[in-house]
Amino acid sequence: MPELKTIRVLVWNENRGEQTSDLIRSVYPKGIHGQVAAALSAAPDIQTRTATLDDPEHGLTEDALSQTDVLFWWGHMWHHLVSDEAVNRVIKHVHNGMGFVALHSAHASKPFAKLMGTNTGRLRWHEEGLKTRLWKLDYSHPIAEGIGDYFELPQEETYGEHFDIPTPESLVFVSWFPSGEVFRSGCCWTRSGGRIFFFQPGHETFPIYYDENVKKVLVNAARWAARPSRISYVFDETKSLEKLD
Amino acid sequence: MPELKTIRVLVWNENRGEQTSDLIRSVYPKGIHGQVAAALSAAPDIQTRTATLDDPEHGLTEDALSQTDVLFWWGHMWHHLVSDEAVNRVIKHVHNGMGFVALHSAHASKPFAKLMGTNTGRLRWHEEGLKTRLWKLDYSHPIAEGIGDYFELPQEETYGEHFDIPTPESLVFVSWFPSGEVFRSGCCWTRSGGRIFFFQPGHETFPIYYDENVKKVLVNAARWAARPSRISYVFDETKSLEKLD
Amino acid sequence: MPELKTIRVLVWNENRGEQTSDLIRSVYPKGIHGQVAAALSAAPDIQTRTATLDDPEHGLTEDALSQTDVLFWWGHMWHHLVSDEAVNRVIKHVHNGMGFVALHSAHASKPFAKLMGTNTGRLRWHEEGLKTRLWKLDYSHPIAEGIGDYFELPQEETYGEHFDIPTPESLVFVSWFPSGEVFRSGCCWTRSGGRIFFFQPGHETFPIYYDENVKKVLVNAARWAARPSRISYVFDETKSLEKLD
Amino acid sequence: MPELKTIRVLVWNENRGEQTSDLIRSVYPKGIHGQVAAALSAAPDIQTRTATLDDPEHGLTEDALSQTDVLFWWGHMWHHLVSDEAVNRVIKHVHNGMGFVALHSAHASKPFAKLMGTNTGRLRWHEEGLKTRLWKLDYSHPIAEGIGDYFELPQEETYGEHFDIPTPESLVFVSWFPSGEVFRSGCCWTRSGGRIFFFQPGHETFPIYYDENVKKVLVNAARWAARPSRISYVFDETKSLEKLD
Repeated sequence: MPELKTIRVLVWNENRGEQTSDLIRSVYPKGIHGQVAAALSAAPDIQTRTATLDDPEHGLTEDALSQTDVLFWWGHMWHHLVSDEAVNRVIKHVHNGMGFVALHSAHASKPFAKLMGTNTGRLRWHEEGLKTRLWKLDYSHPIAEGIGDYFELPQEETYGEHFDIPTPESLVFVSWFPSGEVFRSGCCWTRSGGRIFFFQPGHETFPIYYDENVKKVLVNAARWAARPSRISYVFDETKSLEKLD
Repeated sequence: MPELKTIRVLVWNENRGEQTSDLIRSVYPKGIHGQVAAALSAAPDIQTRTATLDDPEHGLTEDALSQTDVLFWWGHMWHHLVSDEAVNRVIKHVHNGMGFVALHSAHASKPFAKLMGTNTGRLRWHEEGLKTRLWKLDYSHPIAEGIGDYFELPQEETYGEHFDIPTPESLVFVSWFPSGEVFRSGCCWTRSGGRIFFFQPGHETFPIYYDENVKKVLVNAARWAARPSRISYVFDETKSLEKLD
Repeated sequence: MPELKTIRVLVWNENRGEQTSDLIRSVYPKGIHGQVAAALSAAPDIQTRTATLDDPEHGLTEDALSQTDVLFWWGHMWHHLVSDEAVNRVIKHVHNGMGFVALHSAHASKPFAKLMGTNTGRLRWHEEGLKTRLWKLDYSHPIAEGIGDYFELPQEETYGEHFDIPTPESLVFVSWFPSGEVFRSGCCWTRSGGRIFFFQPGHETFPIYYDENVKKVLVNAARWAARPSRISYVFDETKSLEKLD
Repeated sequence: MPELKTIRVLVWNENRGEQTSDLIRSVYPKGIHGQVAAALSAAPDIQTRTATLDDPEHGLTEDALSQTDVLFWWGHMWHHLVSDEAVNRVIKHVHNGMGFVALHSAHASKPFAKLMGTNTGRLRWHEEGLKTRLWKLDYSHPIAEGIGDYFELPQEETYGEHFDIPTPESLVFVSWFPSGEVFRSGCCWTRSGGRIFFFQPGHETFPIYYDENVKKVLVNAARWAARPSRISYVFDETKSLEKLD
C-alpha cells in the first residue's frame, strides 16, 4: 500500500491580538497558532511547529520553510509588517510544492494576495457575531470528507460577496449568514507546484478553532495540500527534444 | 463593426398549470411562455416564438428547432410527458450549436438532465414564498451585465444545496434565502457546440418574469447562448493530416 | 493515520476482439481485461474482478456493482450491444459514488457518453501505429504521481482533436502525435458522487497495458476515483431547515 | 440593439530588438507594436494607440491607461527594465476592468506574472523556426470565432510544456510542434474585473503578426477582453445589509 508519510505543518500567526486583548487571550490562551496546531497535531499523521510575526525573520527562514509541507497562515491587522523578503520566500516554496492554507483574515495577507493576482482584500464584512452555516458544495472534495451537508457556527464575523478572488478550482464551501450575505468560504487553487486553500472561519474573539467540524476541515486541508510531487524538469528546457521518427 | 444578427428564440413551456390553476393563470394570463417571450422581445435584437407541451410534437419539430438560436425551457410537473424523440432532437440541436436556457424547475427536465449527466432533480426546496437575494459572483460574465452586486425578489420558492449538477463553468449567481439555504442560481455550461444556462427564479405563482432584473438576465442569457459558430470538421476525420516536414 | 482501505475494482471489457483476432489474442492472451486487472492487482491496496460483454447481464449486475469502488471500461466495436438496463445501473452507481475509468475507445461507450452529455464519439483517428508522447499538464494531480514531464509509447493509434467532451475539470495529459495531432488524453470529471477519468492509450493491437508508465497511471486512477464519500441527505429535502435566530 | 462601442486598444512593445537587429527591423519596419496596431485597426470597432519601453513612464501613465479598454503587451529581453510603478498601475487598471493581452514572450513579463501568481517564465523553448499547428480546443469561445479546426504557421519559435500557469479558465488553443512538444498557446483568465488572454505566436524574426488567422485572433481577443463592466460596490462594505424579514 502507498506509504502514509508524516505531514510537517508550520502554523504561522501574527500573534499580536493575543498580546493586546484580554478577550482574544481568554479565547486563545495558547494563541490562535497554538490552538490550530493542537487541532492538527491530534491527527496521527501530522506534526506541527509554530511561528509568529515577532520571531526572527517572522520564523519564516529558508530552513524552516524547507522543512514544511504545508504552511497555515493566520493574520489580520498586521499584514503590512511582514517583510517582502519573507513573503517572497513563502511564494517560492509554494511554487516548488509547499501547501498554503489561508485562514480567515489571511484573505488580505501578502502571500495570499500575491498568489491569487487579484485584490483579495475586497469583500464585505461586519462583526455582530451572527450565526453562520457552511454548505458543502463539492461532494467529491477530500477537504469535505466527513462533513455533513452543512455545519453551523453559533457566532462568527460575517463575510459577504463580492469576494475578489480568481474563480476557485474547487468551491468546497459556501457560507450563509442571517443578515443576507453568502460567501465562498472554502476555496482551492493550484499555483505552480503548490496547493492553496482559503477557509473563512476564524474570527479571533470566537472559539472557532475548537469546533469539531472546523478541526476536521483543518486536518483534511493539511492532507490535501501536502501533495508530494514538485515541479522538476528532467533536462535542459532550451534544447529540442530527441527527434522522433 | 461586427454585425449584430437577430437572435431567434423559441420559448417552450409545459403550459399545464396555466390551464388548471386560477392562481397561475391570474399571474400569467398569457402563460409563462407568453411573458418570457414578451420580456425577450422587448430587446431589439431578439425575435421570439413559443411552443408548448400540447402542440403537435410539443412544438419541437426538426423545422422549428432548425430555426432556433436559443431554446428557453420552463417545465415543472409534466417532464415525463415530453417524448424521448423530441428530447433527442433538442439534444442534437444543442450539440450542433443551439443555446439552451433552463428556467426554474427545468432543472429536472429531460433535456437538461441529459445534457448535464447528473441527477439534476436532486436539490432542497420548500414553498413558503420567502424573499430571496441573488448575489452576482462572476463580475466578468455577460449574463450579469447591468446587474448590481445583488438583486432581490420579494417572494420565490426556496431552493437549496446540494444541487446535483456538474461544477458550472461559470457560476454567475448564488442565491440567499432567509430560511438558511444558499443555492447556485445562475450557472453556465457548454456541451459540444451549445451553450447552456440554468436560472433558478420562476415559481409559477409569483410574478417573477415581470421583474426588471430578471428580464435583464433573460435578455443577457439569450445573447450569451446565441453563439454563432457550430462544430464542423473540414475533412475526413479518419485520415491522417497532411504530413508536415 | 487515515486507514488505507482496499479498493475494489471491476474491470469490464467487451472481449470480442480477443475471440476473433489472432493478433489481439497474441498481444493479450488473458484478454485486455486480464492484463488491466493484473496491472492493477500488483498494487497492494487494489483487488480486482473482471466482467465481459458476454457474461449474464454483461457481468454488471446490481450485486456486482454494489461491491465495486471503481469500474474500468474497455470497449470499441460492440458498444451498441450493451443493454440500456445495464448502462443505467452503471450510471446510477456512478452517481452514488462509484468511480468510472474509460479506457481508449470507451470514449464512445454508452455510459461515458451519458455521463458527459456530449457527442463523445466525435474525434479524429487513424491507425498507422505511430509513436505518441503524453505530456503531463497538471503537476498537482494524483493521477500524474510518479510520472515524469512526459512519457512515450512506441506505437499507438492516433487520436486527434477536436474531441467532443465537456471541458475537463482537470486536464492531466495532452498527447502529441508525429502526424500533427494533439489530443486531451487524460481527463477528469465529477458527476454527482462519482469521479470519472478518461485515458486514451490502449489500442488493442499494441501492448499498451504492459507499459510501466501506463500501469502507474492505471493504479493512480483507481486510487483517485475510489473516493469514499457518497452523496446523502440527512433530512427531508422538502422541509425548511430549522429556523435560525 | 446593444450598441457596439468603440474599443480603445493600447499596444505596448519593448521596441528594442527593432533598434538593434536588422533582421527584426526588416520583418517589422513599423515595429511589432506598429504591425499589431495595424492588424487591430483594420477592425471598424477598434481604435489603437501605441507605447514603448523608452517612452516617458513607458507610455503607461495614469492618463493613458484610463483611456484604454485593452492593453496588448509584447516584451522579451527587457522585462526587467519596466518599472514596478508602471507595472502596479497596469495591474490596478486590470483589476478595475481593463483587458490585458500578453503576446508571445510576454509570458515572462512583470504584469502577466503578477496577475497569474505563478512562475510564468518556466517553459521549454528552442528557436529553429519550425512549423507549428494551433488546434482550436474551445469551440464555444469568441476568441476562436472564424478560425477552422486548426491553423498553421510556417515558422515559429517552439514553446513546450510544462508551462507554469494557473489552469486556464478557457483553453482556446493548444499548439503542436514537429519536434515533439505541445503547448497551451491560447489561454484565458479573469483577475478581478479584468480579462486576460495569453497568445503564444509572435517570435520577432518571423512575420507572425501579418498572418490572416493570427490577425483574426488579435481582433477577437480585443473584443473579448474589452468587457464593459467594472467592479463596484454600491454601499459601505463594512455595514450589515438592510435587514430582511
